[in-house]
Amino acid sequence: MDSGVEVNTFVIPKLVVIGVGLIGGSLALALKRAGAVGRVVGVGRSAASLARAVELGVIDESAPLEEALRDASIVVLCAPVAQTFNILHALEPHLQPGTIVTDAGSTKGDVIVAAKTALGDKVVQFVPAHPIAGREVSGVDAALPDLYDGKRVVLCPLQENLPPDVSTVQRMWEVAGAVCHVMPAVQHDAMFAAVSHLPHLLAFALVAQVVNAEDSEAKLAFAGSGFRDTTRIAASSPEMWRDICIGNRTALLREITTYQAVLAHLKTQVEQSNGDALEKFFRRASDARHAWGARQASVQCPPDADET
Amino acid sequence: MDSGVEVNTFVIPKLVVIGVGLIGGSLALALKRAGAVGRVVGVGRSAASLARAVELGVIDESAPLEEALRDASIVVLCAPVAQTFNILHALEPHLQPGTIVTDAGSTKGDVIVAAKTALGDKVVQFVPAHPIAGREVSGVDAALPDLYDGKRVVLCPLQENLPPDVSTVQRMWEVAGAVCHVMPAVQHDAMFAAVSHLPHLLAFALVAQVVNAEDSEAKLAFAGSGFRDTTRIAASSPEMWRDICIGNRTALLREITTYQAVLAHLKTQVEQSNGDALEKFFRRASDARHAWGARQASVQCPPDADET
Repeated sequence: MDSGVEVNTFVIPKLVVIGVGLIGGSLALALKRAGAVGRVVGVGRSAASLARAVELGVIDESAPLEEALRDASIVVLCAPVAQTFNILHALEPHLQPGTIVTDAGSTKGDVIVAAKTALGDKVVQFVPAHPIAGREVSGVDAALPDLYDGKRVVLCPLQENLPPDVSTVQRMWEVAGAVCHVMPAVQHDAMFAAVSHLPHLLAFALVAQVVNAEDSEAKLAFAGSGFRDTTRIAASSPEMWRDICIGNRTALLREITTYQAVLAHLKTQVEQSNGDALEKFFRRASDARHAWGARQASVQCPPDADET
Repeated sequence: MDSGVEVNTFVIPKLVVIGVGLIGGSLALALKRAGAVGRVVGVGRSAASLARAVELGVIDESAPLEEALRDASIVVLCAPVAQTFNILHALEPHLQPGTIVTDAGSTKGDVIVAAKTALGDKVVQFVPAHPIAGREVSGVDAALPDLYDGKRVVLCPLQENLPPDVSTVQRMWEVAGAVCHVMPAVQHDAMFAAVSHLPHLLAFALVAQVVNAEDSEAKLAFAGSGFRDTTRIAASSPEMWRDICIGNRTALLREITTYQAVLAHLKTQVEQSNGDALEKFFRRASDARHAWGARQASVQCPPDADET
């Protein structure tokens, strides 16, 4: 600006998005909306999808990895988590000093192991992150500039990271509309195993049980809104959830084991027709769910969000 | 009508509702809406609640059980299922020939055992039924004349029932807006154990697990729409679900046992990081859930329904 006063002091001169789908595409659109990005370069395996992203104005151009990395300010990995090692391994020889790499994976412990192995000393440039947002539709056509508005992003900085790099990644997400939280990767993974990964596994299992029953047609015909809501997330991407289950294996197994114990306890109370114990158990859960629901009512939580 | 042509050929001269809350109150309002009921008499333990029902125009009057039963056309039991035996036991001495008794309980096998024990030979007059409708709020103030519009009602006639009595109960529900299905009680109980009772138990268990965790506050703060939907029904009535779990004990235990096997299978695949098996499992469930959701989209299914 000619006045010498910069209104938006945060601008990413060159943003590289690896995997331009819902998550990466929405980030690019949000940063463009904020006037916080110079050039957005997309990298991906599908030429058609990249061409579509250019057509939609989500990215300015696509380029091969090596070319895209040249003078890149920030590189955001938005490909499936299971591809993290291969992508970082391919990226490492071309990664220049001063470029920050970050990701958007739903699990963090496994991503960090992959990053340390693939990047070696250059892992200092890698700031792990997880935006808690999504939709039930995927692909670049589903990308929205306001996907992250008011949503949470968890940052799990490494002990190797430089504080200014962590701040830059945090600032990027804030400018895109999100609210950032910093926590250790182990806490992130334990938390999401409990409130997201286990619920998904339980929903997949419940649908499988009904579908595999001999009288599945009759059961599905009479299934109502309780079944509908408890199983909504069982419509999620099989590949993505395969990767999350394996990526967050340790924490998820801990939660499954706990759940098995809780379910076994309930089963015993049903077997013994222990009405008092069942009512007490249900009341504690019901009260807690009511209180949580009331708290959430004031928080943005769109019905189509499929956060991981 | 003076013309000699009756438009509405179905009229219940005297309807008795035992337990005037959401379910019984909505039935009364629906039948009044249709002009299909003469007098509605309410029976219940709370004088205040009965007075409120009169005030709201849901019932015309309240009366003690014995008085209410005099010349009653249809008696509908809408009290909690666990009270079925006691209510029918109290009702039996005053039950006149020609009066039909029916219920609205979420379980049928246990209700039938209670009815046969309490009514003896008079069980011929008892037609078991289960309207699949509800709301997350209860009590007579929550009653709605359109609660049953397009909803299913399952009738589980006894071998003792007279076909005209079954037809009358069916007609009553149809006039109230519902669609009736006839099936054996054992099939009803097995079906709802799978698509309603098990999902409720799983939701209660999931909330309990998160709430009982040491870091429950942090977990609840980061829980999103997946947790919200999978646990919505955990806000349901503790007393009602205690009764359902015990009332449908046998079928529910069978479903819990199957679910434990499914979950153990999934756990093994996670333990072995068996990506192919997990993806295949998730894909089958995801495809089935997508297909079910598409079929349901054309069926009325209000988001606040809390069917049992």
